[in-house]
Amino acid sequence: MKTTVADYVLRKLANEGVEHIFGVPGDYFLNFFQKAEQKLQVVNTCDEQGAGFAADAYARLKGFGAVCVTYGAGALKIVNTTAQAKAEKSPVLIISGAPTLKEQHDNLLVHHRVNGFDMQYKIFKQITTASARLTKENALTEIDRIFHEVKTCSCPGYIEIPLDLVDCELDTASSKFPSVPQGQEGVDQSVIEEALTELSGKLQNAKQPVVMVGIDVHRWKLEDKVRRWLDKNGIPFVTNRLSKSVLPETYPNFIGVYEGGGSKPEVRKIVEESDCLLMLGVLYSDLDMGDFTARFNWKNTICVSRDKTNVGFHSYEKLNLRIFTESLLPQLVAKQGKTFLQQIKQLSLKSAERLEFRPDSTKKITVDRTIECVGSLLKNSIVIPDTGISLYGSSDMLIPENSTFLSSNYYASMGFAMPAALGAQLACRQKRPVVLLGDGCFQMTGMELSTILRFQLSPIIIVLNNRGYSTERFKGPDGKFNDILNWNYSKVTDFLGGGKGCKVQTEQELCDALKGAMSDSTTAHVIELALEPKDFGAPLLRLKQAKAMSQ
Amino acid sequence: MKTTVADYVLRKLANEGVEHIFGVPGDYFLNFFQKAEQKLQVVNTCDEQGAGFAADAYARLKGFGAVCVTYGAGALKIVNTTAQAKAEKSPVLIISGAPTLKEQHDNLLVHHRVNGFDMQYKIFKQITTASARLTKENALTEIDRIFHEVKTCSCPGYIEIPLDLVDCELDTASSKFPSVPQGQEGVDQSVIEEALTELSGKLQNAKQPVVMVGIDVHRWKLEDKVRRWLDKNGIPFVTNRLSKSVLPETYPNFIGVYEGGGSKPEVRKIVEESDCLLMLGVLYSDLDMGDFTARFNWKNTICVSRDKTNVGFHSYEKLNLRIFTESLLPQLVAKQGKTFLQQIKQLSLKSAERLEFRPDSTKKITVDRTIECVGSLLKNSIVIPDTGISLYGSSDMLIPENSTFLSSNYYASMGFAMPAALGAQLACRQKRPVVLLGDGCFQMTGMELSTILRFQLSPIIIVLNNRGYSTERFKGPDGKFNDILNWNYSKVTDFLGGGKGCKVQTEQELCDALKGAMSDSTTAHVIELALEPKDFGAPLLRLKQAKAMSQ
Repeated sequence: MKTTVADYVLRKLANEGVEHIFGVPGDYFLNFFQKAEQKLQVVNTCDEQGAGFAADAYARLKGFGAVCVTYGAGALKIVNTTAQAKAEKSPVLIISGAPTLKEQHDNLLVHHRVNGFDMQYKIFKQITTASARLTKENALTEIDRIFHEVKTCSCPGYIEIPLDLVDCELDTASSKFPSVPQGQEGVDQSVIEEALTELSGKLQNAKQPVVMVGIDVHRWKLEDKVRRWLDKNGIPFVTNRLSKSVLPETYPNFIGVYEGGGSKPEVRKIVEESDCLLMLGVLYSDLDMGDFTARFNWKNTICVSRDKTNVGFHSYEKLNLRIFTESLLPQLVAKQGKTFLQQIKQLSLKSAERLEFRPDSTKKITVDRTIECVGSLLKNSIVIPDTGISLYGSSDMLIPENSTFLSSNYYASMGFAMPAALGAQLACRQKRPVVLLGDGCFQMTGMELSTILRFQLSPIIIVLNNRGYSTERFKGPDGKFNDILNWNYSKVTDFLGGGKGCKVQTEQELCDALKGAMSDSTTAHVIELALEPKDFGAPLLRLKQAKAMSQ
Repeated sequence: MKTTVADYVLRKLANEGVEHIFGVPGDYFLNFFQKAEQKLQVVNTCDEQGAGFAADAYARLKGFGAVCVTYGAGALKIVNTTAQAKAEKSPVLIISGAPTLKEQHDNLLVHHRVNGFDMQYKIFKQITTASARLTKENALTEIDRIFHEVKTCSCPGYIEIPLDLVDCELDTASSKFPSVPQGQEGVDQSVIEEALTELSGKLQNAKQPVVMVGIDVHRWKLEDKVRRWLDKNGIPFVTNRLSKSVLPETYPNFIGVYEGGGSKPEVRKIVEESDCLLMLGVLYSDLDMGDFTARFNWKNTICVSRDKTNVGFHSYEKLNLRIFTESLLPQLVAKQGKTFLQQIKQLSLKSAERLEFRPDSTKKITVDRTIECVGSLLKNSIVIPDTGISLYGSSDMLIPENSTFLSSNYYASMGFAMPAALGAQLACRQKRPVVLLGDGCFQMTGMELSTILRFQLSPIIIVLNNRGYSTERFKGPDGKFNDILNWNYSKVTDFLGGGKGCKVQTEQELCDALKGAMSDSTTAHVIELALEPKDFGAPLLRLKQAKAMSQ
């Protein structure tokens, strides 16, 4: 079948369910933009950085995302967002324009060029799972390969299309790369049997079995299978900040978020004293493990990862998360799970209580009370906290079944949340983003609110204005370099000419403002909170205390 | 002598005349920021991108600039600005924090990490002239080497300092890398003599000798020598957009800006019909050569570059711009220069006339009249046009001797101008930036006005609001992707809580607003112009016409 390079790429995007492509147009790629506009919605952001983050959020919710940029001055602005997608395994396809093949052949000094024409490709090779510079000869094979890799590895990929190749004709043979979800490669049946025997014994004997549900359970779409098993065996579970809401937090087995020394003490105790801790797809990172204050009794752990399963100090190679969850987990039975869950039931109840928020009309609003207030009002929401106090504080927010938590709690790039709200709401129109971000993050990418307004979206933006980089003040050493200008954040709507803004001081005002915003989904709402610069929120303080004690 | 890694780097920066360092603090580098704050002014921007651009502009004016960022989520945001510095040979030193040597050795999953710890280094290696990851063993040698290379190549360099190396003690031996300006390596005297004989003949016989003064004359600080020679021999000269103001445009020998088909016809004719065109340090790029519509009679050209001198179709290797200008040029005499200059004198006079601007109180303001109006009021100004209509249009602006023109007319990244104003005014306090930028560029990095206000600077910001990406509409194909939200740009001062803003419609209003801003240097001024979306300005239209004719 005859088609063009652009149409082939766009058709493959549509096949992956992609309906929006994020980017900023540029003169090496205007013809691709025009083609794209005919097939799907082109969402042009204020700056390429916004497009990169939006596509990342979109990909996390939709299973595939795409960003489209011009060569050099366009693509090189999304190196950081692509690095984040790589670190957090988000399937984002970067499609970059490039000078014509003739210009490249003639070695011309065209604008946006640095060194050789392959420089940009070499950079993206470092931060993508697959990358290609298209030529007439390799276009079909390479496009197929990159899509396949992005999908199966759930990681970013890179395709560079010279300007004069966009409309080049392709004779599409059938794809050589059938889509196979990663982790379905076989493992010997005897490995599964031996592991089953060993783990059955462990679980049967365990008095305090606990499951830690990690982010890969979501990335490999195994939530339902894990949930069904937890339900049947009555085993309590925790998540990490990165995997918050992978299973709903109002689910009876949920006991809290584990983050090493940053956890609530009762949650930490249960996890670290468990005599059988089953970790499913958990990322052992500094941010999820409370700066590595996590203290497990490793001989009592079962860690199932993307590659293998570690039981205590030995490994079953190739027994990866998918095979484990699909073939082995359903056969495992825990005797004591339900009894143990009964014993610690008050923890879940305690969590559920927090769904009620009673504002005090005189009390100045704090980080912790903001988290509680927001949590109590969530309904079909996508909570998106930006890096810093917002993200740390959100650990304690209870996410109900109808809602989702979306964060970059491993790579942790500041400035993610606002553009992520753009991507998230386009990916999932039945839910509404609730963004929490500090003034520092707002100053980085907050103006993408402009794009949000232009595409008539309606997130609720909560600006935790604590006048500067509070998390850095907390970590220290501090200096004037942590100060920033105090913008009139709630007036951003006047400046942009759209949305509704307000500024609140007390618990009551926040509660009223949030309820007002929740009941008006016609536009975006910006709520600015006047916080104290040294209001760090409970989780960071717990972490500090734990670190002091462990030294 | 004993010192620490941080102190050694900071001392070397001071030696290069650096008084300001741009950046955004992050937790892998807070200790370095604190040290830096003690030795020089740390200018923390809204986003790292702003810091990168500001440092680039600072380096272009001051001869050395520095930007200081955290690992990963910090450094990877300035890949584009560093690429620009590389492409435009701006001596910017990137200093990045990194996880501790111990964390790296233990291979921990710390935040901001992607793949191996050397990933970031590999990326910056592509876009810097020299790069290093410091260790205890290599720190002294590598710091010396990077500074040396940045200085001598006038290109960006990269130093990565692990967190636990910042305070590490160094025993500083004397530097192995004495600073030698690039291009002073010897060339055989007989080469100079042969070239002198040939070129003397050519110049003596030339009836219409013209000099094209390129950007490298500025980068290698050869302005005075070239000027003295032009003066003595009475030869007319042109610049390119990238080299505008390298010699003052009110200087009698100046006849205009050459940019191929984009030039004014009379300027183009003189250059392309010259029987001896001496090109000194010119970049033969698409943007400077009117999308390669330049038509030279190559056998009549003498091209002096960073490496060699081409005369017609043969070369004198190693006879580079520095040696040529210092050793050969003073001995060259042009017979006909003065006669020819007399003949074309009306061109300079015509230029000088344009210094008077008579506003029409009823006429709607246009791009061309904006350029004339701004040009007529310049005084101790640094004109900084951002990419697009502002940059193209500025070709026709006359820059007087007391003022400077600063642009990124080769790499041409959008979003350069606002942060460049920050860097430029800090680098050169006796001059005041006049920024011209479109609404598209404003939406990328315009919020760095915040940093400008916080550091009490006073640029004049002229927003050419033509509602979208006009240059792209011009180049086509057009689409909705070229539309952006219409912000209330003049109200940015209310939003940020500082500076003065206004919006103008007519020539008279612009003239009054500009005069008002010029006479009040207490703060930044934002002047928003309501332009028509299809007002592209004369130079772009000339270029279009020339391209149509050459096809």
